This record gives sequence, C-alpha cells and structure tokens, in this order.
Amino acid sequence: MKIKKNEVAVFAIGGLHEIGRNMYCVQYQDEIIIMDCGIKFPEDELLGINYVISDYSYLVKNREKIKALVVSHGHEDHIGGIPFLLEKIPEIPVYATPFALALIKSKCEEHGILDKTELHVESEDLVLQFDKLSVSFFRTTHSIPDTLGIAVHTPLGAVVFTGDFKFDLTPVMNQPAPNFQRMAQLGEEGVLALLSDSTNAEVPQFTKSERFVAGSLHNIITGIKGRIIFATFASNLYRVSTAIKAAIDTGRKVAVFGRSMENGIQNGIELGYLNVPDNLIVDAETINSLPPEKVMILCTGSQGEPLAALSRIANGTHRQIKLHPDDTVIFSSNPIPGNTLSVNHLINKLMEGGAHVVHGRVNNVHTSGHGGQEELKLMVELSKPKYMIPVHGEYRMQVVHAHLAQQAGVPAENTFVLKNGEVVCFSPEGARIAGDLHVKDVFVDTSGAADVGNVVVRDRQILSEEGLVVAVATVDYKHKRVLAGPDILSRGFVYMRESQDLINAAQKHVYHILKTEMAKDEKPKDSEIRKAIIENLQDFLYSRTERRPMILPMLIEKK
Amino acid sequence: MKIKKNEVAVFAIGGLHEIGRNMYCVQYQDEIIIMDCGIKFPEDELLGINYVISDYSYLVKNREKIKALVVSHGHEDHIGGIPFLLEKIPEIPVYATPFALALIKSKCEEHGILDKTELHVESEDLVLQFDKLSVSFFRTTHSIPDTLGIAVHTPLGAVVFTGDFKFDLTPVMNQPAPNFQRMAQLGEEGVLALLSDSTNAEVPQFTKSERFVAGSLHNIITGIKGRIIFATFASNLYRVSTAIKAAIDTGRKVAVFGRSMENGIQNGIELGYLNVPDNLIVDAETINSLPPEKVMILCTGSQGEPLAALSRIANGTHRQIKLHPDDTVIFSSNPIPGNTLSVNHLINKLMEGGAHVVHGRVNNVHTSGHGGQEELKLMVELSKPKYMIPVHGEYRMQVVHAHLAQQAGVPAENTFVLKNGEVVCFSPEGARIAGDLHVKDVFVDTSGAADVGNVVVRDRQILSEEGLVVAVATVDYKHKRVLAGPDILSRGFVYMRESQDLINAAQKHVYHILKTEMAKDEKPKDSEIRKAIIENLQDFLYSRTERRPMILPMLIEKK
Repeated sequence: MKIKKNEVAVFAIGGLHEIGRNMYCVQYQDEIIIMDCGIKFPEDELLGINYVISDYSYLVKNREKIKALVVSHGHEDHIGGIPFLLEKIPEIPVYATPFALALIKSKCEEHGILDKTELHVESEDLVLQFDKLSVSFFRTTHSIPDTLGIAVHTPLGAVVFTGDFKFDLTPVMNQPAPNFQRMAQLGEEGVLALLSDSTNAEVPQFTKSERFVAGSLHNIITGIKGRIIFATFASNLYRVSTAIKAAIDTGRKVAVFGRSMENGIQNGIELGYLNVPDNLIVDAETINSLPPEKVMILCTGSQGEPLAALSRIANGTHRQIKLHPDDTVIFSSNPIPGNTLSVNHLINKLMEGGAHVVHGRVNNVHTSGHGGQEELKLMVELSKPKYMIPVHGEYRMQVVHAHLAQQAGVPAENTFVLKNGEVVCFSPEGARIAGDLHVKDVFVDTSGAADVGNVVVRDRQILSEEGLVVAVATVDYKHKRVLAGPDILSRGFVYMRESQDLINAAQKHVYHILKTEMAKDEKPKDSEIRKAIIENLQDFLYSRTERRPMILPMLIEKK
Repeated sequence: MKIKKNEVAVFAIGGLHEIGRNMYCVQYQDEIIIMDCGIKFPEDELLGINYVISDYSYLVKNREKIKALVVSHGHEDHIGGIPFLLEKIPEIPVYATPFALALIKSKCEEHGILDKTELHVESEDLVLQFDKLSVSFFRTTHSIPDTLGIAVHTPLGAVVFTGDFKFDLTPVMNQPAPNFQRMAQLGEEGVLALLSDSTNAEVPQFTKSERFVAGSLHNIITGIKGRIIFATFASNLYRVSTAIKAAIDTGRKVAVFGRSMENGIQNGIELGYLNVPDNLIVDAETINSLPPEKVMILCTGSQGEPLAALSRIANGTHRQIKLHPDDTVIFSSNPIPGNTLSVNHLINKLMEGGAHVVHGRVNNVHTSGHGGQEELKLMVELSKPKYMIPVHGEYRMQVVHAHLAQQAGVPAENTFVLKNGEVVCFSPEGARIAGDLHVKDVFVDTSGAADVGNVVVRDRQILSEEGLVVAVATVDYKHKRVLAGPDILSRGFVYMRESQDLINAAQKHVYHILKTEMAKDEKPKDSEIRKAIIENLQDFLYSRTERRPMILPMLIEKK
C-alpha cells in the first residue's frame, strides 16, 4: 500500500461493517492523526472472549508518524482500546474532553501505565497544529456529556469525523446545543471528506431530545409509591441527573451500586456536571433502613450483564439489596440487539420477584443518542463534503447512509462504503482505493492482559459444539508395543457413565489403530500415528453417535 | 402430588415461562388428555444443542391413563416433540388437522415409527368421547392453515386451550374466519379454565390481517424489475400462496429451495390449499436460464439459519443459485428475538452482494400470527372462563396476560401464572396448587437420536469459555514412580506454540504434585491424586494466566 505525496489517506482500523471499536486515521505524508480507539463487545460471550480490539500493527510500524490520538467522547467503543494501544506505542499524546479524560485515566491506571501516558484536555477551543496537519473540534450532542466532532485540516480540505452524535436542540444538564455555526463554517471553508455516524441511518426520524425523556421520567418517578430501582448506562449522566433530581423532588435518598456507576457519578460531581446535595447519596445500610417511598437505587446492568448490580439483585445474589415485591424497576435504556435475550431474562426474573418493571420506548424512558435520517442529512448539508464515508455502523446502515448523502447532494461516485483496513486516498485528481491493511480481529479475554489467538477461539468453538475425546496410551515404538492404555476420556461428548459400551469399543478401536500403524513402518512416526487415530476414531464415533468431537490423541513414549 | 377424585388437574410440561415447547395436560381421575407436544430451539446453538424437548416422565409413569394427544396446529413448537414422545409411549393416539398431520407423518417416518403410530384426522366436526372426558374443537386463525382451539369437557366445565391464535377477520387462501359462535357457545355452557396464548400480551394492538400483508406484498412484487428471492417460514402457506399468485400475475416462474419449503408446498398442493398451475414451478437449471424479470426464488432461511437456502445464497455457497447485484430479497418474516443477530448478518451479507433487501414491519411484508391485547381480551369475553391460565409466553407476558384477563372480568385470585410442572387442581370447592412435577429440560443434539445430558452441556460450556488442559502421565503406584510424562496438552486455552514456557512450568508442577501425593500414603489413591492435580494445576494456571481451563488429569497405571 503506497500513499502518494499529494494524497490524503483515510482509513478505519475499526468501526466499519460493525457497531463498535471505532478507530479512524488520517494520514498525509509523514503525519498520522488517530481519531478514537474503541473496543467491541463480542456477540458470543460463550467463547470466553470479553472484548475485541483493533489490529494496531500498521500504526506500530508507522509509530514515528503518529502525531496524536484525538477522542470524540468517552464511550467504551471509542476509548476502550486506548490502554492496549498505549501498551504498544506509549508515546502517543492523547487528547480527550474532561469526562472522557477521567475515564481514560482510570483505564490507564488499571493497566499500570498512567505515569507513562501523555494525556491532554481537549475542548472546542483547542487547535492542534502540526507541521502539515492541524486538528480542530466542534460541539455535538450524544448520550454522554462532552462530545466533540473532529476536523483534521489537510492541504486538500478538512477531513471531518462526526463522532457519535444526534442534534439535540434542547439538551439537559446545561450542556450546550450542537455548534451549528462551526459546522457550517467548516462547510464554507471546504470539507474534503465527511466520516459520519451511521447507527440510525435506517431510522426515518429526528431523534427525540433528552429533555423529552427527562420530563417523562420525572413524571413516572413522582407517581411511584414503593422503592425505585433505576438502571441505565453508567456514562449516561443525563439519565442519572434526571433520576437524582426526581429523587430530590420526592424526598428519596439515593444509593448507588456498580463500580462504573459510582465512578460516573463521582466524575460528574468533580467536573461540575452533577449537582448532588450533601447527604443525598447514602450507603447500603442506610438505604435498607429507610421506608420504601424514601428509597431510590441507582445501578448498572440495564443490558442484562450477568455480573452487574441489577442482575445480582434480580437473582437474589446481591449482597446488600434484596428485591421487594412492590419495587419498581426502571430501565432507562434499550437493549442493544445482541443483548435482547439477556435483558428479556432479566425482566422476567425481576417480575418473578414481584417487581413492577418499566421498560421500552413506549414508556418514553429512553431515547437514542444517535441521529436519525433527518439529522444525518442535515450534517451533510452543513458540512457540504466533497467525499462521504459512512462510519460506525453495520454494512446495511453504511449503504443506507451513503444513499442519504446522495439525496443531500454528494455524487454517488464520491460516496465510499469502506470496510476496516481499506485505504482511500484523495488527491486533487480524485479519489482511489489505495490498498487494504488486512486488519484482523484481536481477542481479549477475562484477564485483560493477553490476546486470545484465533486458533484458541476456534478450538473453543469446536469444543463447545461437540465436546472432546482424549485417547491416551503409553507406547514403546521400538518394540512396537502398547504398554499401557489406551484409555479414553471424554468431556462434553456423551455422558460417560451411561456410555460405557461406546467407550470400551472406542478403546479397542484405538488399540487396533495403534497396532496397525506401528506395524506399518520400521520406525513408526508419532505424527502419522496421531493422525491415524484422529481420523479413524472420528469416523468410528460419528458412525455410532453422529457427533464429531475433537479428538486428542496423547501418546507417551517409553524410552 | 395427589389429584383428588373430584378434581380436574391442569398442568404444562412445556410452554410456560418460555416461548416454545408447548405441551399442556388435563387430567381427571384416570384419564389424561395431552394438548400439543412441541420442541424449543435453544438460545445458544454454540453448545451443539439443536433443540430442547419436554420431560415426559410423568406421562410415562401414567401411560395407561393417556387417552389422546390432540394437536392445535402444525408448528414445530407444537408438534416437534411428538416422535420423541411416541418413542417412549407408542400407543398414544394422535389427532391433528390435515396440514399438521402431513408434517407429523414425515416426522414419524424420519424416526422410523410411522407404522407403529396411530394417527387420526382432526377437524372442527370431530368429538372425541372417552369415559369421563370428551374433546371438541373450534376454528381459529394463525400463521399456518388448519388451526384449531381445543376444549376438553370435564364434569366441572370445559378446559379450553386456544392454541396459537389471532382473530383474522379477513383470512386469505379461502381459510374460514374464526368460529366465534362456537367460542361464545363454550362460554355459555361454562368454561372452567382458559389456557390462552400470551405471545403478544404486551402488544397493545389488534394484529393486522393476512389480507393486508397479501395486498402489500403483491404491490411490492409487481413493482420489482430484477430477480426476486422470497424468504418466509416454510409453514406459512399464506405468504407462499401470495408470492406464487404475484409470480403468476407478473409472468415469473418459481423455483423452490429448502426441503421444508418444498414439503410445505407439496403438502399445500395435495391438501388443495395451494393452486399452482402446471409448469409454474421449475427446477434450478431452468430458472438460471430465464431472464431476471421472469424469476422468483422461494426459499427458507428467513431467520438467518446458517444452513438454510438463503444463508447459502448470501454466502455464495449455494450449489445452484448465485446472488446477482440487482436481485431483490424479500424477508416476509420478522426475526424472533434470539435470531436478531443472525438475521442482521444475513441482511448485511445480501447487501454486500449488491442485493436490494426488503424487510421489517415498515414495509408491511409481515404480520404476527398471534393476537394482541384486544384479541386476548375478546377471547376472555367470548369464553367467560372461571379460571384463567396464561400459556405460551415468557413470564412477563403471562403476567401481563393475567392482568388483561382481570380487566376482562376474571377475578385476580382466579388467574394462575404457573410454571412448567406446576399442577393446579380445580374442584367445586375452588382451586389449589397441588404440586410440582419438577420437569427438567431434555436436550437433543444433531443426531436427533440421543439425549444430551445436562452434565455434557455444562462441560461444553466450561470448555467453550476457558478451554482445557490435559495432563497425562504413566505412573507406577507400587514403586511410587512416574514412568513417563507428565505431558501437557491444551486446547482453547493458550496458543501452545507461543506458550512453551508456561507448558514446561506446568509440566514440572504436575510432576511435583505426583511425587508429593504418591509419597503421602502407603497405597496412593488414584482419585486423590487426580483431585490434587486438578486443584493445584488450576491455581497454578490461574496465577499465570487468570484463566481457569478445565483440567483433565489422565494417569495410566503401569501394572
């Protein structure tokens, strides 16, 4: 892949053909600006993968070119990868808004790299000036405070990344409305390419304002008699703020559960976003001593995460909070597609415990943080980009978003529906796909430390579907004898106590293969014999059970 | 659990606190009527489970009391368990409507039990008269032809099971509207208990008629220029019929892919439901020789099932049909919650192939087969039950349904939100929960033959999340020596080639445990040593990797 001297290259290392793991780069000559560095949550937690990060190898190879990592906002899918990136390239200066910065700090602290990390506060007034590129910012609105769009200024015009945004014209918590003047001005000055949020590209609406939800939530909360358990995303300070305000207005004390919720509130107070009177927030013991109508519990777990506070309350495994039959649980959130089933389970569990559950859009207790079709078109009209690259969305959303851009005046041949790793280069002559970085998925599991390889994940998948059979024997290749075994052990295949006949037959079968294979050659080859066992035993077991477990032959050679 | 002589017992073996696996029983003295016998699809196919059937042990124990299995309609979650039940209790006479019966026949044939099975055609005119109980039927509407509600007449009144239903007042395909007269008459005569479909109990609507969808589909299809790929549930003959009619009207030939779709159409033709002119349906070769505007492909896989025709077309692995860039794919279906992600993937894949995709409710190409709140209340008003048992739904839906019944006049204390296995007994004195049959889940995997035990499934889950480590050694307990090994092998844990240090250290660790444990006793106990290896090695590996793989110690004793 070769970027020419007069070309501005734009590529994604994450965030295309997927929702999550946002990471976009602009390169001009020997300068690279990285925008966001997120993680993705896997669709299947069964394989022990906790999250998926991006493939940083191109950046590692070109580390001396990287000028800055600029962050649009503090959501995990935009900042979660930062410590992993910095472990590989510690010298990258990171710029983020105050709320995002507080979250990034905790992450770096957890990874033990805070002292080696260069962190800067980012705001709409900041301009980063490098040799050839400069970066400026513009205010937008999203479901977390302190959200900025990013403009990377190049000799060919600005590359504008919207970040996650909606146009909330009546934001809450004293957050300013989006800076339409600055966006329009970018359009005036000349936008080379617009990278815009495709999450709600299929939704033919203008997303409802947070103020609307705040009013509706306040009404609902003031009408409730018993205890209130209020669950939302820890980072959605708007909802937390609304809940706290309603608690104050109805004379309730508030107890907070879930580490990320505690941190979020702490950060919100420290940064001056949350106005929490003394003595409002109390500990578990105090809250349990108060009458139900004086209690609000704020907690994490609105996506049905099994270890979060709400799931533990529902399952009766929470150390301090037991569910009461007249509790009201409010989900101020919507399940993301992969979590529908777990949220379903959670709601069932809570209702089985007798709680009243308020959930879903019908109750107006949630609105999206992403703009719908009208807002996306408005963003195009404001920034008037020459080229359009839909980002942050599944392929289908990127395609629809490209059509919207075309409706708003971007020529079809100037819209690029890319995939991760594809590099598009812009020059005065036009645009071209310059190559593919072939970025792979990088899996991270519980430990948070090591990468889990693709081989390991594939093995886990086979194991999970068919189980395994271990065949073990001690052999003497020299005298072509089976000294001990073969023994057969299985897990996840058949219930061994009830399948003794099958196991015995398999044992005899392996013995036979061993003898046959050892007889074949003067010097029996270990790898050949293993291969023969795998193939023969697999066929044998399939013929008996129609299952194909993983076969592990273990031959111990007696020397 | 004791049912008294004057009591009518009602219980579910499946279908409560879940959607799927419907199976309801009415028992009076020595007579049992079974209503439906379904399967459930597991939420997680990763564990190699293909479906979950019900626990038939109570029925096996009381087999001489069973008078009949009566079937409401031909969906898998109502008939899929029948061959498994009949394998245990072959003598049960089965009654089903023609379309369901055709499907049941194929199932019994596949299981090789057709000749031992007593199958009868069921219709609204049939009355089954037993010594103490009798059974009658009433016409309803649902997303499959030939749907009946069931009334089991007892000395205390009728126990009415709605089956899956909506009130489609303008059904298509010459199907009659629901028999409101008969339902009202049951209410007149006295309904003891109503078991009613809770699937859409949370939906505050009257479900749209099939006729509405048929019109909308016809309009969409006639407007399409290129090839049409039409996907729906194989059993939804209404959609198949609409598609076929539109194909005729627009001069297209039709090719059918997917075995269940072929069977469905075959059954539909044979039973006189589908009117298909000669030469309309052509084979793959012919369809590939026609111009795009003359082609309609009917196929299975609208739920994103990976092996179904549509997925294979999308992935380019279909033997006969390749996706063209100007194909239009119509999903005449909605993803059920557990399938949201796979349907998402499928739509992305199709769009990546250039196809135009029509999906979702916004296009009016689908309507539910289940009645919403207004229909559920109407069912209560018609049948005027003394007691109400919401069935076929998650707990949350059962609870909402119970509230709806209360709004329609059933006293709160007469509504029973039960779980599978709970037995409610009705007598002239009142109602009581008589006990719990403690029904367990029975897992069935690919082979379709054997049950997969709970232990096996749990093992698969551990294996899938953390992988496994096998430690194998040949030991001589008598002389307390390790003759060969220990060798360490892992799968799904760490990538072994890159973790040689860890493996070596683990090897030494196990050697040490073996020596220590053998030294402890005069006669070392195999089970004790295994236990020591599992515990010690697990701690050791956790300290190094923060993962807890399954440990399999295999000790081969040299005799």
